[in-house]
Amino acid sequence: MTKPLVYCDYNAGAPVRAEAAVAMSRALAAGGNASSVHGAGRRMRALIEDAREKLAAAVEASVENVVFTSGATEALHLALAAADGASATLIVCATEHDAVFEHATRALGATRVAPVDARGVINPAGLESLLRDADKPALVCLHLANNETGVIQPIAKIATLCRDHGAFLLVDAAQALGRMPVSISALDATYLVVSSHKVGGPPGTGALILAPGAPFRTTRFGGGQERGRRPGTENGPAVVGFGTAVEWAARDMAAETERMRYLRDRFEAGLPREAVIFGADAPRLPNVSNFALPGLAAETAVIAMDLEGVAVSSGAACSSGKVRASRVLDAMHVPVALAKSALRVSFGYGSGPNDADIALEALNKVGARRKLAGAA
Amino acid sequence: MTKPLVYCDYNAGAPVRAEAAVAMSRALAAGGNASSVHGAGRRMRALIEDAREKLAAAVEASVENVVFTSGATEALHLALAAADGASATLIVCATEHDAVFEHATRALGATRVAPVDARGVINPAGLESLLRDADKPALVCLHLANNETGVIQPIAKIATLCRDHGAFLLVDAAQALGRMPVSISALDATYLVVSSHKVGGPPGTGALILAPGAPFRTTRFGGGQERGRRPGTENGPAVVGFGTAVEWAARDMAAETERMRYLRDRFEAGLPREAVIFGADAPRLPNVSNFALPGLAAETAVIAMDLEGVAVSSGAACSSGKVRASRVLDAMHVPVALAKSALRVSFGYGSGPNDADIALEALNKVGARRKLAGAA
Repeated sequence: MTKPLVYCDYNAGAPVRAEAAVAMSRALAAGGNASSVHGAGRRMRALIEDAREKLAAAVEASVENVVFTSGATEALHLALAAADGASATLIVCATEHDAVFEHATRALGATRVAPVDARGVINPAGLESLLRDADKPALVCLHLANNETGVIQPIAKIATLCRDHGAFLLVDAAQALGRMPVSISALDATYLVVSSHKVGGPPGTGALILAPGAPFRTTRFGGGQERGRRPGTENGPAVVGFGTAVEWAARDMAAETERMRYLRDRFEAGLPREAVIFGADAPRLPNVSNFALPGLAAETAVIAMDLEGVAVSSGAACSSGKVRASRVLDAMHVPVALAKSALRVSFGYGSGPNDADIALEALNKVGARRKLAGAA
Repeated sequence: MTKPLVYCDYNAGAPVRAEAAVAMSRALAAGGNASSVHGAGRRMRALIEDAREKLAAAVEASVENVVFTSGATEALHLALAAADGASATLIVCATEHDAVFEHATRALGATRVAPVDARGVINPAGLESLLRDADKPALVCLHLANNETGVIQPIAKIATLCRDHGAFLLVDAAQALGRMPVSISALDATYLVVSSHKVGGPPGTGALILAPGAPFRTTRFGGGQERGRRPGTENGPAVVGFGTAVEWAARDMAAETERMRYLRDRFEAGLPREAVIFGADAPRLPNVSNFALPGLAAETAVIAMDLEGVAVSSGAACSSGKVRASRVLDAMHVPVALAKSALRVSFGYGSGPNDADIALEALNKVGARRKLAGAA
């Protein structure tokens, strides 16, 4: 198997930052169950609380309102369950990640879907009309930045709407953290969700962060960890890696986002004329380009690009392998045929200065072969 | 802070095995989201599937019936949810771990509690009477070995009872794996739950294992990982560490259990005459001793032992710090005053040949000081 030389799939998961890997390995070697009273337990407890402080500082939350989970999916489910009972209506945006959209529509039922415009931005008038008709209070679930397109939602406007209608606001910032400022207080969110492996921490952890006074209905019981909000032995080593990754991401964000934006813009500027870039007219994360070359099927292109040594994706990693057009692009009224050509290139902290050029070169080769095959 | 020289708290969590840590670090460095189509994703997918094969082989399950989770607590909750709808009555043993007992009684309601005898062994007649009166089918939730006392439950007998009454059987083997044979087919269980960090893998993963045909109602939706049974990006590095730990535990089990049993028996033989050993008359795991020295309060003894360089616990780690007598010992009709003196010493794969003697020496010092203080 060819080792990918150029990894352009940071939205699926960033390689773990060296600083995070080192911190995690140390914590793993130290061992100890953080709930134990003895020294080994207390040391692991101290490491976890240190990571909690780092994350709280990064998102401007109170330390006691940071709940570590096994990842963003669990954190989102925990938030949805926590608000259940306190909220009478659940409203999700049409372009939420499956962890919200599938769970809300299939497990929680009676969900209203707020529409987006052709750019992928939530339609505030559409949301307001849902809020007006909803049994109160409502819970609005909206991502800060989309995982496929990078489109950034106007959370300030939505938070005001939520406040006006007495609704709670759950913001999924899994893709945003480290790529733009993420502050629960600035966002005026009731709940905030972040992920470790998207920001260069290890997989297997994430967090639900609560605003002061956020309703929390406990639905999972066990050993009483995380102040009784999330049971199960803490994943100390991963939490330590997460905290370290967040610290480094925050520290280097200006430089990193500038580099990502340069690469992304350079990549898009070099795309063939016929390329369609999704969400190009909306505010977007600096690191991601979701585009289609009409006639170049995404599934085969991903494999062909991989053989050229460039790792890209055809949408959300979680949906890879399933041959279906993107729900996100469908909500943006992208025709199915074009959506099936959608490719996602996403840069990150470790991207090299030539990665955009290398990705373009590989794409050109793959595109040229397709044209030859089409001509044959 | 004094670094514990002797770690005698394997039931709270085993130090990670070197082989597991190395395998995990490699997987962490390799990176990749297992759902990605490109090479980095496929390599992580291959590592995860290799770990799944190792675990399936260890517990004699089908590979496709191994569901990786974030730990035993989540696996237990997933099993309870999976069986819900298919089962009409939930019966839990009085000495289940809080992850089952608290969750069943507080979140799931309408739970019947099967009693244990003074040795801590489930009373089959008591269970049968519950099964006879229960709405059918019932789900019986029973641990294979108790986390506090190490008492082993007569699963064969219980499985037969369950079969006779058309009940499903969920076996929590978190403490048993690596310390006695654990086979889902030999146990005749419908569901089996295991934990990584108890067997020398990293924290943050565990598994729910299904018997062929076990009911599975999906209650969590998202990216479709784990055949749609457990959403969320796979914790690849931890799963790899878990698989490696299971492989080494299985390979070395005869020698390791012999060493644990030697240490445990030596420890118990050296205890003062007045010591009460809980579950001593029942079949027990080879590695654990749960005992009380009347008058020596457990909470202070744990701290005093820690200062002597020996890490022990006063019961389940999850409950440490909460000043309450053990629910497990209460179910065994141990008087509260004695239960508050309960200490747990648990050995494991890494315990040294002198660990029992060192623990005894520390305990003697701590006990002697208590007597002096009492005499003063």
